[in-house]
Amino acid sequence: MCGIVGYIGKKNAYNILINGLKRLEYRGYDSSGIALSNGTTRIYKKQGKISNLEDFVADKRVDGNIGIAHTRWATHGEPSDENAHPHQSQNGKITLVHNGIIENYAILKERLEEKGYTFQSQTDTEVLANLIEYVYNKIDNRSLEEAVRLSLEKVVGAYGIIVMCDDEPKRLVASRKGSPLVIGVGDNEYYIGSDATPLVEYTNQMIYLQDFNIAIIEENSFTLKTIQNNPVTPEIKRVDIQVDQLDKGGYEHYMLKEIYEQPTTIEQSFKGRIAVDGKSIVLGGLIDVMPQLVKAPRIIILGCGTSWHAGLVAEYLIETYCRIPVEVEYASEFRYRTPVINKGDVIIAVSQSGETADTLAAIKKAKEDGAIIIGVCNVVGSSIPRETHAGVYTHAGVEIGVASTKAFTAQVTVLTLMAIQIAKEKGSIDQSEYEILIQEILEVPNKVRVALSKEDKIKSISDKYSDAVNALYLGRGYLFPVALEGALKLKEVSYIHAEGYAAGEMKHGPIALVDDNLPVVAVAPKDHYYEKVVSNIQEVKARKGNVIAVLNEGDLNLKEMVNDFIEIPSCHPAISPLVAVIPLQLLAYHIALNRGCDVDQPRNLAKSVTVE
Amino acid sequence: MCGIVGYIGKKNAYNILINGLKRLEYRGYDSSGIALSNGTTRIYKKQGKISNLEDFVADKRVDGNIGIAHTRWATHGEPSDENAHPHQSQNGKITLVHNGIIENYAILKERLEEKGYTFQSQTDTEVLANLIEYVYNKIDNRSLEEAVRLSLEKVVGAYGIIVMCDDEPKRLVASRKGSPLVIGVGDNEYYIGSDATPLVEYTNQMIYLQDFNIAIIEENSFTLKTIQNNPVTPEIKRVDIQVDQLDKGGYEHYMLKEIYEQPTTIEQSFKGRIAVDGKSIVLGGLIDVMPQLVKAPRIIILGCGTSWHAGLVAEYLIETYCRIPVEVEYASEFRYRTPVINKGDVIIAVSQSGETADTLAAIKKAKEDGAIIIGVCNVVGSSIPRETHAGVYTHAGVEIGVASTKAFTAQVTVLTLMAIQIAKEKGSIDQSEYEILIQEILEVPNKVRVALSKEDKIKSISDKYSDAVNALYLGRGYLFPVALEGALKLKEVSYIHAEGYAAGEMKHGPIALVDDNLPVVAVAPKDHYYEKVVSNIQEVKARKGNVIAVLNEGDLNLKEMVNDFIEIPSCHPAISPLVAVIPLQLLAYHIALNRGCDVDQPRNLAKSVTVE
Repeated sequence: MCGIVGYIGKKNAYNILINGLKRLEYRGYDSSGIALSNGTTRIYKKQGKISNLEDFVADKRVDGNIGIAHTRWATHGEPSDENAHPHQSQNGKITLVHNGIIENYAILKERLEEKGYTFQSQTDTEVLANLIEYVYNKIDNRSLEEAVRLSLEKVVGAYGIIVMCDDEPKRLVASRKGSPLVIGVGDNEYYIGSDATPLVEYTNQMIYLQDFNIAIIEENSFTLKTIQNNPVTPEIKRVDIQVDQLDKGGYEHYMLKEIYEQPTTIEQSFKGRIAVDGKSIVLGGLIDVMPQLVKAPRIIILGCGTSWHAGLVAEYLIETYCRIPVEVEYASEFRYRTPVINKGDVIIAVSQSGETADTLAAIKKAKEDGAIIIGVCNVVGSSIPRETHAGVYTHAGVEIGVASTKAFTAQVTVLTLMAIQIAKEKGSIDQSEYEILIQEILEVPNKVRVALSKEDKIKSISDKYSDAVNALYLGRGYLFPVALEGALKLKEVSYIHAEGYAAGEMKHGPIALVDDNLPVVAVAPKDHYYEKVVSNIQEVKARKGNVIAVLNEGDLNLKEMVNDFIEIPSCHPAISPLVAVIPLQLLAYHIALNRGCDVDQPRNLAKSVTVE
Repeated sequence: MCGIVGYIGKKNAYNILINGLKRLEYRGYDSSGIALSNGTTRIYKKQGKISNLEDFVADKRVDGNIGIAHTRWATHGEPSDENAHPHQSQNGKITLVHNGIIENYAILKERLEEKGYTFQSQTDTEVLANLIEYVYNKIDNRSLEEAVRLSLEKVVGAYGIIVMCDDEPKRLVASRKGSPLVIGVGDNEYYIGSDATPLVEYTNQMIYLQDFNIAIIEENSFTLKTIQNNPVTPEIKRVDIQVDQLDKGGYEHYMLKEIYEQPTTIEQSFKGRIAVDGKSIVLGGLIDVMPQLVKAPRIIILGCGTSWHAGLVAEYLIETYCRIPVEVEYASEFRYRTPVINKGDVIIAVSQSGETADTLAAIKKAKEDGAIIIGVCNVVGSSIPRETHAGVYTHAGVEIGVASTKAFTAQVTVLTLMAIQIAKEKGSIDQSEYEILIQEILEVPNKVRVALSKEDKIKSISDKYSDAVNALYLGRGYLFPVALEGALKLKEVSYIHAEGYAAGEMKHGPIALVDDNLPVVAVAPKDHYYEKVVSNIQEVKARKGNVIAVLNEGDLNLKEMVNDFIEIPSCHPAISPLVAVIPLQLLAYHIALNRGCDVDQPRNLAKSVTVE
């Protein structure tokens, strides 16, 4: 959420920054801007996508070997040229880009106004720029790093910032709290990014900035200290992301590419974790905490959005197989109330980016309360894995489509492995059921391939329902979270108001929405809920709703009853979410395309929600 | 859900049956029908509301002292004259009305077709009529009661039925499993109803039929037996419902009447339970189980729809004050999976009607697993209270509006008393906080009155948003469930697709819906979430959404920021759901009125969901 890029070195900064912004555009695309320095600083900012900025800059001067840039997801102040970053202080000498929210900006602004400062934008960021200028001018030994340090001491909130100062033109100062920053180490040059993706084509040597760290970066020197002014030794990590992972690979959109990657990414999620003979699972990251997991009186799963849905699938799996009570909660709710965490309780934090602000804050809090924290994240080296006691990476590869697809199935795969393995170690599952489930997981990639092969059918169904204004998604049991996830996909990329429901809840309200305009997507494979879901389908049909059923191959009875159907291969109920979600992803994609929506960068959204 | 009425005696049956159907119309209003017997049986059936049936019957013969009648909420087969009840068997001699779903109707129908039966409707009920006829003709000692008994032995599913037979014209046979039936005992006459409301103007002596009971009713005799043919002694209970409780009391709609009753009904919910000195709470129904509640390792709250929302409020209360982990689950999901219930775990079942099929089934299951079951229900003598170990009635009085209002606030009041009292007995709350909370509860009726006094303002706001096709409702903490409930109200009565969200989740998907057409209702009193909710409001405003804030009197800052606002008195966060929900009820009511919707009988819905 919001993307930052910075460069200092000998190359032309502009191209590096613009390319970097494009890599980070999934984090926000309300407006963008760039500041280039060659002794003096030039700023270009534009509302809209990065291509707008490029057009705007086309006939401008773009020299300079130092620069910072930003792509925005608006929090305070609507998207506009003025509110775009970088922001400058009143005297024009301090320039900065910022992710996050300065929560006490109103008070800081008031005090600065008392000192005579005026403001051009509605942003919290401009307040910070002026605060730094004010401090810079006030302190005896004027230095940007000290001005930034003292200013940040006064800030409440979250930030990832890069600051330039015209009086110290060969230097960048960066700092973070809450919002991630990564520094790529080149050959007498440094690259800065909100994550590693804009850096990997230049270097694989990365320094992940920690909260309250301040980095002072010059062409030939790199110094790290804390906001308390204590020195920190930078730790350089090798990050291997292939640049081609960041491209569309021949697909029209990242979302479609990522949907089609799932047979591979699901396999990556279990490969090396299931023994070659298919009789056992090894989760290296959990070995140390397995005794605690087996004995856990309760497991609390925290996540947001799609990750929360993956957590719901895990609740059903863990309760069924491990007989451990599970609570799944929105991280944003958990962190601000006083939830009960008892001795031995285990928290599982699920987050694709590993940076989700609410989830990160929630586990920090739970850690203080003595809970054991386990992470299920995708981005290696991100903040949540660093805060956890143990964890399992989902290995889905870089996900760029804002609407999560392959990250969801990777999360569910990993959580399924975890559930089965905890059950095995606990003795709450017998060996034959354990092996059956492992076998079912091994078969998922091929079943997903079969599900993907129905794309043409799904496309033709999407043509019928693209004008819908509402939609309901129904499922029961393991497929209730899949109904939620299917509805979320449609909502995210097509802006159709889709809502998922446990099918049994439909009669308690949502059925009032049913008329002959309403598409109702029912996930109804032949599991032990089948008859109940069919009853719910009949209740919809009795009210003239249009039912699109996701059903098992060969289910003639249901095919006759519904308006449209999409076939999926049959599989074990506990594993079925991994297969049943595929047609729902494709349906959302094609409906959004038909409606002319930008599926990779849906309006108002941004990937990796690093603010509250 | 579906309403049944029956009469046998000396009076004209027609008026009693039609009046009874009107009392039960809140249970279903797709179609209705009536069968009158005077030796021979005449049937009148009509799609639509009961007034349609009355018009249709106006010029027909309505003599007869025996009769049965039905108002339908369609499950199998769309609403139509043919599918309306009563249904007759092929030879026209067996006539019956039925609530519930015969789950194995397809197999039974197939077998009957093999015997030469043909069917006029798509209903499961006609199958049962023909099955009874078939059995009647086959058995040696032909008797309706025996034919019904043997037929019901073959039935899988839920039913509440009344059966007439032309060969035994002075007799009604009634039975139930799952769907409630109440028999009112008059003076040489009997009244039958799905609940007591159609009977109370004739008698206050009621027999509540139990599952698998069969009643054989004649003018002067009443016999009860089980489906296994064992005799049962009828237990007559006195039920005191004043007939004027069943009227609109001068309001245009039941819903509005019930909204305005809340200062009184909330008081009824705590009256006699809070000591006169305001320093202690006595919940008579819980005294026996209080030791178990205090020691409970975990509490599971089950409900559907509005009751589930009340359960969510209780989760926050109980976790905060009692430090007992709480899981709130849809009853429809809980009953079909294998949830973990450990020794000492307590289940709280929340249901207005006390008849909700899923909730009833869920507690039966949990009881088998050894859990302690506590009911929080409104209808005295209903099925759920009979199945529980202990419970607290909510005393909201008869609720007739299909969209629940006063029942919700009564549930929340009772659950709040429970949470505080458990905390007190457990010692997890100190005396001063305990007394503060009690004092806050005592002040709720007056604060609700103040909230109700804003109706004109709410009405004028509703005029602006009545054309909306979608709406979002946001809240955090205790007010997250209130956002869900507010959205459900709007959805139920206006058919606008409203969805509630924890405000922190908005960025993870629903914000994609925000544009300049979307009303976003934000519940934002000045509690410790206030700043966070205001941040979320700013994110909506930055995307041109229309924000309607429910805020505290005098909050000038927020008033300026939003498009519209509704003031509520400030109160303790833990008690705030009871006050904050009021404007949301009124908003839904007025928007629905503006759209010309039938607020008391919204389309597709029915009160008391007695089928799955």
